[in-house]
Amino acid sequence: MTAIAAKTAAPAEILAVLDEHAAAHAARDVQRMTAPYIDDATCYTLAPPLQQGPETPYGTPDGLQKWLASFDGPVLVDYHNPVVTTDGEVAFVHTLTRMTATPAGAIGSFSFWFRSTFGLRRIDGTWRITHRHESTPFYMDGSFRAATDLLP
Amino acid sequence: MTAIAAKTAAPAEILAVLDEHAAAHAARDVQRMTAPYIDDATCYTLAPPLQQGPETPYGTPDGLQKWLASFDGPVLVDYHNPVVTTDGEVAFVHTLTRMTATPAGAIGSFSFWFRSTFGLRRIDGTWRITHRHESTPFYMDGSFRAATDLLP
Repeated sequence: MTAIAAKTAAPAEILAVLDEHAAAHAARDVQRMTAPYIDDATCYTLAPPLQQGPETPYGTPDGLQKWLASFDGPVLVDYHNPVVTTDGEVAFVHTLTRMTATPAGAIGSFSFWFRSTFGLRRIDGTWRITHRHESTPFYMDGSFRAATDLLP
Repeated sequence: MTAIAAKTAAPAEILAVLDEHAAAHAARDVQRMTAPYIDDATCYTLAPPLQQGPETPYGTPDGLQKWLASFDGPVLVDYHNPVVTTDGEVAFVHTLTRMTATPAGAIGSFSFWFRSTFGLRRIDGTWRITHRHESTPFYMDGSFRAATDLLP
């Protein structure tokens, strides 16, 4: 693997971080979900506010546990053909992502697609997530409605 | 500057790309706005679809020109304390961003905040944007309304 052309030779170590992230969601295991993050990671998620942190609803393990409790069964997160760009000790990954889950008490699951970007650093030999950005666009028709019905 | 600790010693070259991007918007200059991107950059923007491209409303210089025409005067994009992480020939930047503009024919401007992530590669000695991700979160109260009223 060359240092720069990682876009076409995606490093297995970085993709393994995403695989584990997805497996942790499927297992509803908050400890595993949060393990790859540095303590002060900058996370822009689907839910307000602009940036998650220790004071925000989804910024703590307890908050994530409550979020998981809003679903029955596994929370499936499918990273669809992630593209890794890396050199040395820094990497970023972008991918379209499909989430499938069943709201607590509901009889059926829902699925929707969103966009994911991860920023990573290799710290003491281990790739850690330092930045995550997840979003849907929103309709520019005056409705300001989140576009949760888009397909790739 | 050390190779890894760029988080605290943000490289001036990368911040200059963002400064130029903002200046190009203020000048309403599509050529300058698109100049730093590689041809097949992966752009996730505020508007649908999930990913911009040559077939999408905002994926071409003509599309950007129409978008600019929907505003009177400068389109001000203020990158608020961007954080750069870089090593070698790869970098990513995350920042909260405020946009201020006046809709065509309106008497006053509007401002709102969103989240921006840029991925860059240094190609032939020049930092180029290979990935951009811009978004607002959306309200999880059942309205699915884009949260365009948030402040940092």
